[in-house]
Order: sequence, then C-alpha cells, then structure tokens
Amino acid sequence: MLGKNTLKFIKSLQQKKFRKQENAFFVEGAKNVTELLQSDFECIYLLYTPRFKSEYPDLVRSCGGQKYETTEAVLVATGSFSSNDYALAVARIKPDAPLQVEKGELALALDEVRDPGNLGTIIRIADWYGIRKLYLSQQCADFYNPKVLNASMGSFSRVSFQYVSLEPVLSAIELPVYGAFLEGKSIHSLDIEPEGIILVGNESKGISPGLEPFVSQKVTIPSFGRAESLNVAIATAVLCDNFRRMGGLS
Amino acid sequence: MLGKNTLKFIKSLQQKKFRKQENAFFVEGAKNVTELLQSDFECIYLLYTPRFKSEYPDLVRSCGGQKYETTEAVLVATGSFSSNDYALAVARIKPDAPLQVEKGELALALDEVRDPGNLGTIIRIADWYGIRKLYLSQQCADFYNPKVLNASMGSFSRVSFQYVSLEPVLSAIELPVYGAFLEGKSIHSLDIEPEGIILVGNESKGISPGLEPFVSQKVTIPSFGRAESLNVAIATAVLCDNFRRMGGLS
Repeated sequence: MLGKNTLKFIKSLQQKKFRKQENAFFVEGAKNVTELLQSDFECIYLLYTPRFKSEYPDLVRSCGGQKYETTEAVLVATGSFSSNDYALAVARIKPDAPLQVEKGELALALDEVRDPGNLGTIIRIADWYGIRKLYLSQQCADFYNPKVLNASMGSFSRVSFQYVSLEPVLSAIELPVYGAFLEGKSIHSLDIEPEGIILVGNESKGISPGLEPFVSQKVTIPSFGRAESLNVAIATAVLCDNFRRMGGLS
Repeated sequence: MLGKNTLKFIKSLQQKKFRKQENAFFVEGAKNVTELLQSDFECIYLLYTPRFKSEYPDLVRSCGGQKYETTEAVLVATGSFSSNDYALAVARIKPDAPLQVEKGELALALDEVRDPGNLGTIIRIADWYGIRKLYLSQQCADFYNPKVLNASMGSFSRVSFQYVSLEPVLSAIELPVYGAFLEGKSIHSLDIEPEGIILVGNESKGISPGLEPFVSQKVTIPSFGRAESLNVAIATAVLCDNFRRMGGLS
C-alpha cells in the first residue's frame, strides 16, 4: 500500500536539498513519465492512475520500481501539477560523469541560465537539434527541478549534462567556442563546419566577462527590428538552427 | 492624491472583462513603462517611485496623464509583479484598425496561441525580426493581458495586431501563406522572397484543419534529434530567422 511516508518522501523531492540528500527526483504527466520509463534511468516508484495503465500497459508492466495504482487527487497532492490523471515516477539521479565533446560534435554550454523554464526549454531544443551534451555552470537552475523536467517535455532523458566551472572547461577544450553576444559576427554570414561549443549567457547579464577570453568567435543573431534582445532559449534555438543548417544535413 | 478608487480601478484591469469595459490596460516595470511613455499610446495614469523619477525625469515630466509618486508597496499591491520599484502606467486601448499587409511585407498569423507567455514572447520575436503586423485568432490570449505585455518586454508598443477570424482573412489575401507543420518543406531548403504570412498554430493541436486549404506552402523546421516538437514561440523565432535570412538583408 502507498503509505504516508512514501508520499511525504516524494513531495520532499520538490526541493533541491532533499533531491541531493536522497539522490532521487520525480517526473509527472504522461509525456515525461513514459519517456522516463523508456530510458535508462532507474525507476524507484511508479504511481499511476487506471487511465495511465490502460493507455500504457506495457510500460507499467515492465517497470522495475515499486508500483502503486492511485488517483489523480493523490498525484496532484504529491507532485507540482495542478492536474495529472496519468502518473508520477521517482527515479535515481545518475552519477556525475565527465562530458567529452568529440571532434565534429556540437555541444552547448550555459552560463548562469537561472530560470528553470528556460533551462528545460533549452534541453528540449538541444534534443530537437541532436545536441546531446550540455555543460552547465554551477549557477544554472538544477536539472532535476520539476519545472526544468516539465519544460523539457521528455527530452531530459536524452541529453547528458555536467555541472562545471566553465572557465577551465572552455580553456582546455580544443574545439571552437561560439559565444552569443549582441555584438558579434552575424550568424547568417558565418559558414563553418558545425562543431564545437555554443556558449549562451545569463537571462539579463549575458556571458560572464571572465569567459570572454575563451570564446573563439562571437556570434550574433541579426536584428531587423527594434527589440533590444531575445530570450535566452529563443536565442539558443536560432543559433542551433543556423549551426545545423551550415552542416547541410537537413 | 492617489485614492483607493483609482487603485481599485487599476487592479480591476488585470481582468479582460474590465479592460474591455474601461477600454484601458496597464503595464509595469521600467522596461514596459518607458516603452509605453515613448509610444503613441495615451497614458491615463502614471504611478512611479522616486527611483523611477530619478532615472527617467524627462519621461515623467512629458507624460500627459495623471501622475502620482508612490511606493513599491503600492505598485506591488496594485499590479501583477511581486517586486516593482519603478512604475506602473495605465493607458487607453487603441481602437481596432484593420491590418493591411503589403507586397514585399512579412506578417504573422497566430491560430489559437492561448498561453499569454507564448503570445508575449512571439510579439518580442516579431519586433526583433521587423515584423510589425500580427493577425490573432479570437482564441488567442488577450494582447492586453499583463502576462502578455510583460513577456513582450516593451515590444507590444511596436506591433500592430487585429483579432480576426483567420479563414476569411487568409482566403482573401493575395500573398503566400506559409504554415508551420511537422510535415512540410524544410525551411532550410526553401528559397523565396520573404513576403506573405507565416501562420503558426496552437500549442498542442497545431494549425486548425479548417485553415489548411489557405496554406500555400507547408513548412517544417528540420529535426536532427528526437524531441517530438518545439514550443510555438521557439518555432516562430526559427521560422522568422529563416525567412529574414532568405531576404539577404542581414
């Protein structure tokens, strides 16, 4: 039976402190839970409604965690959604593994992207553009924050990430580092092989001055109107699209 | 003196019903208020803190509305922000004016973009890419919703829009209509003069089937990974970027 202590445990995972302490996180809703169950994350608990079971019987059956059939009311009381007639899954946080970006590969580095919605949206964008590795500065939002995972729309299960101090990483890397600045070379006139790191900065401050020396090419999204800037997730998408376009793979 | 009834009036404008009834709306924060004061919107009330006045003395002086110096606490109690040590301005809603998209011009049409954050972000994107006209279906979020205006980061003052039934508008227009679909011609291989309408659809349902007959070219953002879709604002930005790139204006 699904006990009070288990629900309390799950609820505590809304806070980073407890996620770290328990080495666990949760995801909610049909999209994120089905993606989690099809990934290599270790599922600890699966709470599902009859509706979820009838729509995804195989996923419920093959899940190796403790399984509980429950109600929407319990899912809403435990998770962060205001409605959820599907499921909630608790999984083990993966151990930190150093990223290695290979020659010919494109990766992202995020400097102080603090808003969880922006980080989640960028994860989804990375997955759309086939970018599988993300360096995150220590000041970025927590990858396992429910708002990040929700905004990622399941893509959290298909990217690798590492929280790092960006200075040593960018200074050591032997690939080009493209930094998004308001004054740089137009991304429309850049013509290179799409490999290296695309570095984007904080929502309001942009890229930290300390990282500028490691940027091999400043790039800019050309403006045709009068808005002062673009949101960081929007800018990331436009940059990724331009880089992939250069690769001529479409 | 700033009376209770005025504050109650302003607060009521958080609701669409009262915005329509009073033919007025408000904006908050330094960015949106300064943009409003520099636009042709008629300002009715300007509530500002000493900080705002010291940073923007000319704008306060030249504002033709009723002006009140007040505190952050009053701004927070009246508006929708959790902190606002700058200003709040109430302005007159502009009368509906039919849009006319000219030959050689690029415009946007939004079909059921219901999320205010998405609509506001799209307004900011339009302004970045020099797109000044937006057709909005009746089911879109309200342009004057505080969440829309806030997400637009001041760009609300630089676009024209009209709420319309999209069928008759798109069927009558003599310019190409480019519709964003998951199955269409890759936007990377399209090579046309950037003119006409870019049509984007609802967050989860996409473009209404009833509008498909009026789409002259279905376009798609090529995917290089495994995410199922992109957020509608992200997709709009990538499409606008590709259209402007085709124009070779950068």
